[in-house]
Amino acid sequence: MGRQSIPPRSGTAFRLSAGDTLWVIDPEGVQVADLLAYNANDVREVISNGRTFDYAETIKLTTGHVLYSNRSRPMLTIVEDTVGTHDFLLTPCSKATFEHFYPGQPVHRGCFGNLAEALAPYGISEDDIPVAFNCFMNVPVGADGAITVQPPLSKAGDFLRLRAEMDLIIGLTACSAYASNGGSFKPIDYEVEQAN
Amino acid sequence: MGRQSIPPRSGTAFRLSAGDTLWVIDPEGVQVADLLAYNANDVREVISNGRTFDYAETIKLTTGHVLYSNRSRPMLTIVEDTVGTHDFLLTPCSKATFEHFYPGQPVHRGCFGNLAEALAPYGISEDDIPVAFNCFMNVPVGADGAITVQPPLSKAGDFLRLRAEMDLIIGLTACSAYASNGGSFKPIDYEVEQAN
Repeated sequence: MGRQSIPPRSGTAFRLSAGDTLWVIDPEGVQVADLLAYNANDVREVISNGRTFDYAETIKLTTGHVLYSNRSRPMLTIVEDTVGTHDFLLTPCSKATFEHFYPGQPVHRGCFGNLAEALAPYGISEDDIPVAFNCFMNVPVGADGAITVQPPLSKAGDFLRLRAEMDLIIGLTACSAYASNGGSFKPIDYEVEQAN
Repeated sequence: MGRQSIPPRSGTAFRLSAGDTLWVIDPEGVQVADLLAYNANDVREVISNGRTFDYAETIKLTTGHVLYSNRSRPMLTIVEDTVGTHDFLLTPCSKATFEHFYPGQPVHRGCFGNLAEALAPYGISEDDIPVAFNCFMNVPVGADGAITVQPPLSKAGDFLRLRAEMDLIIGLTACSAYASNGGSFKPIDYEVEQAN
């Protein structure tokens, strides 16, 4: 199907078969893409930051690391990463987080709302949305545990390449929050390279 | 009902009403208790490490911090904490994590299995178990993001006191893993102080 574009402040969902490779590309640089993964045959199995941290023994995930499900099974392997800084601590921005972090600014349903709408046709509802793997999101953790949301380190054309380890439903966004992308809203591109 | 004891390598579940205070006590020191919370009126609403990190802007949670649900609502407020070091990154130990981290040692169903059994009467199943708030668990994060499981800093009699901000179902364990409690298995005590 070639390269697809997710317009600014929107999201999409699609099927990814075991063995397929997903490219998540930041076409303009300094943008975030929230990535969710569900077992296509049983969407109660979902990506888990905690299980992934357990097995990776780090919160800084990059090439070679595996993203695990809540059932301790590999969902995606990061096979190439031109950035090296992503976030797996924070939940997708939502109406509630907009109201909290940006008082007085226009409220948006955020990646959370965009993911919920895109995933609904697959039988996935808001309560089924956990912490996403936030591609390119830059959230340094201080020595005291404090976290701050900084502009992504991605430059135009940077990408993540991930291999599906099972049949998956993927949710993917072009981030809607003010802080996480340095204050501007940009698209995210993706491409699926089929195994067969 | 007075002070209760959770025997080593086991778990329990109980109801906590809005306004009640829960004491989680480490009676012997250097032990971990995995804590889960669900909205008693709709168990699809559950404690969320990501939402909590969002609002607290730190991964180091202690007195004054609020533990949030996946719906961005306060579930529990930490009103007193004599230790100051807990973990909210890692999932409850399970059969799979035992097999991974302790090859050749006896496999245990872990806090995950104990929580699943204790929560089943409330209509909560394995797939509904997210990252727990791991009371007293000591998981330093290195400057490079690496995480290690160290013995808890809790001494005999140390405790956490948490106030329920909504009617809750609580799951609570005395940890079963080898590494997280310094190699020995001990009980955890708790007590509910009712608001009315």
